[in-house]
Amino acid sequence: MASLNRQIILDRLPQGPLTADVFRLAESQMPAPGEGEVLLRTLYVSIDAAARAWMLGPTYRAALNAGDLMAGVALAEVIESRAPGLKKGDLVFAETGWQEYAAVPAKGLTVLPRVEPLSHLVSVYGVPGLTAYFGLLKCGLPKSGETVAISAAAGAVGIFVGQIARLKGCRTVGIAGGPEKCGLLTRELGFDAAVDYKAAGNDARAIHAALHAQAPDGVDIYFDNTGGPVMDACLFSMRPFGRIVCCGAVSNYDGRPPYRAMGVPGMIVTRRLTLKGFIVSDFNDERAAAIDELWGWVEAGKIAVREDVVEGFENLPDALIGLLAGENVGKRMVKVA
Amino acid sequence: MASLNRQIILDRLPQGPLTADVFRLAESQMPAPGEGEVLLRTLYVSIDAAARAWMLGPTYRAALNAGDLMAGVALAEVIESRAPGLKKGDLVFAETGWQEYAAVPAKGLTVLPRVEPLSHLVSVYGVPGLTAYFGLLKCGLPKSGETVAISAAAGAVGIFVGQIARLKGCRTVGIAGGPEKCGLLTRELGFDAAVDYKAAGNDARAIHAALHAQAPDGVDIYFDNTGGPVMDACLFSMRPFGRIVCCGAVSNYDGRPPYRAMGVPGMIVTRRLTLKGFIVSDFNDERAAAIDELWGWVEAGKIAVREDVVEGFENLPDALIGLLAGENVGKRMVKVA
Repeated sequence: MASLNRQIILDRLPQGPLTADVFRLAESQMPAPGEGEVLLRTLYVSIDAAARAWMLGPTYRAALNAGDLMAGVALAEVIESRAPGLKKGDLVFAETGWQEYAAVPAKGLTVLPRVEPLSHLVSVYGVPGLTAYFGLLKCGLPKSGETVAISAAAGAVGIFVGQIARLKGCRTVGIAGGPEKCGLLTRELGFDAAVDYKAAGNDARAIHAALHAQAPDGVDIYFDNTGGPVMDACLFSMRPFGRIVCCGAVSNYDGRPPYRAMGVPGMIVTRRLTLKGFIVSDFNDERAAAIDELWGWVEAGKIAVREDVVEGFENLPDALIGLLAGENVGKRMVKVA
Repeated sequence: MASLNRQIILDRLPQGPLTADVFRLAESQMPAPGEGEVLLRTLYVSIDAAARAWMLGPTYRAALNAGDLMAGVALAEVIESRAPGLKKGDLVFAETGWQEYAAVPAKGLTVLPRVEPLSHLVSVYGVPGLTAYFGLLKCGLPKSGETVAISAAAGAVGIFVGQIARLKGCRTVGIAGGPEKCGLLTRELGFDAAVDYKAAGNDARAIHAALHAQAPDGVDIYFDNTGGPVMDACLFSMRPFGRIVCCGAVSNYDGRPPYRAMGVPGMIVTRRLTLKGFIVSDFNDERAAAIDELWGWVEAGKIAVREDVVEGFENLPDALIGLLAGENVGKRMVKVA
C-alpha cells in the first residue's frame, strides 16, 4: 500500500470564474480509520457544477473555505474496515474529498453492487440518474403527449431527463450549447428537437424565439438545470398550469453576477405555473425502486448512457473548470485509480 | 331612467406610472340589451391593481388598447332582462367596464344574495376574499404552528390571508408600507408582527433583515401579492420545503422596469421550495363552499372586514392611481350609484 496520500487543497476562494491556480496539490500521510470508520481508496471522483456553488457560501452543505481539502463525492473501495457491515473490497459512494485515500465514518454508507462498467454507479445509477428520475417523475409529473423542455440537456442529468420523458410518451426539446451537443441529442439520444442557446447568443428573447419554433404550442414541463436566460426564455413559453422543475442553477455558479429573472413572478401568476425545487436525497426512501427501474431501462436498451471520464488524479481541477465551461457530454468524472 | 350613460375611456396607453390624463370622460346613449342579455346599473366598481397590467399586454385577458372603454368588474343590479334566469332587481358581479350602465350577456352571471352591506360582495365574499381563501388554503397548504408572511398585507387580499392563516393556527407576519398600515395589521387585524418595507427603503436586503427579526426561524409560507424586492427578501427567509403562493405582482405593474429576482432559481433549489401561481377562477367549482365558510367566520366575528369605498363615478381614475401608489387599506371600490 502507498504510504502517501495525494490531496488537492482549495488554496484560496476564487473571485471570478474558476481557475486552476486556486488549487494546490499536497501530500499527506495515509489516513488511519478510527473505530466505526473505513479507509477508502478513491476510484471515480464525481465532478459536479455544484462544487463551484459550495465556494460561494452555505447551500445544502457548509461553505468551502480557503485551505480546505477540496470537497467532492466519489465511488470508492473499502481497503480497511473498522465498522460492522462493511468489509474490504466493498464499493461505496462517499464524501471523500479530492484525495486518493479517505478515512470516513461508515454510518450512512451503503454497499453498492459491482456493475459493469463501474462508472455507471456514478452516472445512471448515481446522483445524475436519480436526479433526473425523481425530478422529472416526482416534481414534473409528466403525462403522455406533453412537451418537456430541458436545459443543460446534454449534461449529466439532462440526457436522462429527456430519455425518461420520451419513455413516458412526452415530446422532448433539449436546450444545449453548440451544434455538436444539439446534434447528439436528436441523433443519438432520441430528443425530438434541440435548441442551441449559444447560437442565440445566450439572450433570453432569442432563446425564447428559437424554443418557440421548436415548441409552437408551448411547454408543459421545463426541467431547469441552469437558471439564467434559458430559464427566462422557458418561463415565457410555458403553457397554463405548466410545471418547472428547479434542479440546479449552473449559470449562476461560476462567479458571474447572478442573472436576474424577468418572468418572476409575473409569468408564474398569469400562466398558473408550479415551480418546485428538490435535492435528490429528499427521495432516499424510494432510491432502491428507482435504481431497479433505471436498471431495467438500461438493460433493455431504452436508455443510452453517455459518460465523460477524465483519467488521472492531477486532472481534477481542470475537469471541474471544463465542466463549468460546458465542455462535457453526459456525466463527467475523474478516474483516480 | 337616465337616457345618457357616462363612461370612462382609456384615451391612450400610459408610458410610465399611471396618470389621470390617459383617461377621458365620455357620454353615450343608454345601451339596449339584445336577446340573451341584461341591462345593468353599476353599483360598486372594483378597483384592481391588475387593471394596470391589462394596459401592458395580454394576461389572462386581452390587452387594453387606446380608445377602449376602461375595463373593470362591478357589482351591478339588473334593470332590464332579456334572458331567462335573471330578473329586474337581481344583483350580479359582471364585467361592466367603467360606465354607469352596461348591456352584457347573461351567460355566466350568478345572482348574488342581498347581504348587508352590499360592498361585502366586492370584498370578503368577492374576488379578494376568495383569492385569499383559495390561495392560502389550496396553494399554501398551511399547517398549525407554521409561519406565514404576506406582502401587501393591508391590501384587499392580504388582510384576509393573514386572518385566515391565524384561524388555521399559523403565526402571521404582514409586510406593508408605512407605520399606519403596520400598526393596523397588529392592532386591529390580529397579525402577530408587521414589517414596514418602506422603512427598509424597499431594498431586498434591508427588508430581509427586518423580516428576519420578526421571523428568526424562517417562513414556511410566503403569500406574494407584489413580486419585486419584497419577494426576493422573502425567498431568502424561506424554510426548507416552504411554499410561495404567487398571487400578483403589483410592484411590476405601474410602468416601472420589471424588478429582476435574485433568489431565482438558487433559493428554490437549495431550500426545496414550491412556488405556485393561481387565479381565483381556477377554483370556481369550490366557490360556493368557500363563501359559506367565509360567511361563517365573518358572522362569528373571527374575520374583520376592512373596505376602502370611494364615492363618485368621476373618481374612478384617481381611485386606481391611488391604489397603485398603495394608499388603500382593504378592498378599494368606487360607489357609483
